[in-house]
Amino acid sequence: MTIDPASVPAANAYKILIGAIVPRPIGFISTISDSGVFNLAPFSFFNGVCGDPPVVCFAPNARTPPKDTLVNIQATGEFVVNIVSEEIAEQMNFCSGNYPPEVDEFQVSGLTPVPSDIIRPPRVLESHVNMECKALQVIEVSARPWGGSLVLGEVVRFHVDDAIIDSRFSIDPDKLRAIGRMGGTSYARTRDRFDMIRPA
Amino acid sequence: MTIDPASVPAANAYKILIGAIVPRPIGFISTISDSGVFNLAPFSFFNGVCGDPPVVCFAPNARTPPKDTLVNIQATGEFVVNIVSEEIAEQMNFCSGNYPPEVDEFQVSGLTPVPSDIIRPPRVLESHVNMECKALQVIEVSARPWGGSLVLGEVVRFHVDDAIIDSRFSIDPDKLRAIGRMGGTSYARTRDRFDMIRPA
Repeated sequence: MTIDPASVPAANAYKILIGAIVPRPIGFISTISDSGVFNLAPFSFFNGVCGDPPVVCFAPNARTPPKDTLVNIQATGEFVVNIVSEEIAEQMNFCSGNYPPEVDEFQVSGLTPVPSDIIRPPRVLESHVNMECKALQVIEVSARPWGGSLVLGEVVRFHVDDAIIDSRFSIDPDKLRAIGRMGGTSYARTRDRFDMIRPA
Repeated sequence: MTIDPASVPAANAYKILIGAIVPRPIGFISTISDSGVFNLAPFSFFNGVCGDPPVVCFAPNARTPPKDTLVNIQATGEFVVNIVSEEIAEQMNFCSGNYPPEVDEFQVSGLTPVPSDIIRPPRVLESHVNMECKALQVIEVSARPWGGSLVLGEVVRFHVDDAIIDSRFSIDPDKLRAIGRMGGTSYARTRDRFDMIRPA
């Protein structure tokens, strides 16, 4: 099947992207509004960018009005990336609903906000890894209904559960038990793995 | 463990990123050099950005000299994203080595180049999904040794194997059998899945 994106509804192009670009890591993003309301929402157009400085990026969908996460980052320049393990999958899913700006998804989900070291948005206690981030750049890629923006942020503080990392900074995937996003309503576990050594 | 990235070697910050941001989808990128040499290399700082227009991004590490993929995109403005299934995992791994610019990784790996519809770089026959892309923007995020750039590209043509997609543009993950990148030398399969319905 050969598809010219210009010839199909944008929803279908989006559906191909989320069905083919799998498994996607989940950036569970906590922010705070100008008026002090906490927000927490998952994004799977999320990944690392580079290590020095450590930079991550994620892409909120275009919305009218814009998503609270984006509004808050534009107001404060700060966010926390929290990593999602199997244990908090359901709580994360609660946070993926469309709630008005005055709703605090920590309360909706029962997850626990903990003060960050450097920035105002809280981090998620139940996540094994939190990355406190300062926004570097917000690129509006497309304002159309299936468009989106790309947020780049520099990690200014890592918090890693001592139980999942060793002294050489290796994270044990069987202790992290991260989940990834697939197409539709589906998620993938990360227990079924194999190794390949990169050629010299 | 609380880590100030400025206080540890950049390699360690990078190690935390690749151990925590998992599972990462793999963008297996084919390009062509100014002089006509094909290149094929996998990137796991890769994801979708939005659906209208369909946009993807990936982040090649900073290198001296720069990675062939980046050099080629800067010269031609074009690349193909090929999706990696379990069946071609080993061939993809061959392409992750450091080869000089004159080496064609299609030949190294035995994968088959097929002409694209709209752009000059070939697509990978063995991939169930190919996305022909035109570069929109290349952002140099950091030129340091563990730095990197972020490439944004618009998908101008999708090719999807008829055997894995239905008439409603749903891709069957059990037919795609995509693999994701974990930390270290590890990869995750996508067979072990569960569903969660997003709250209304």
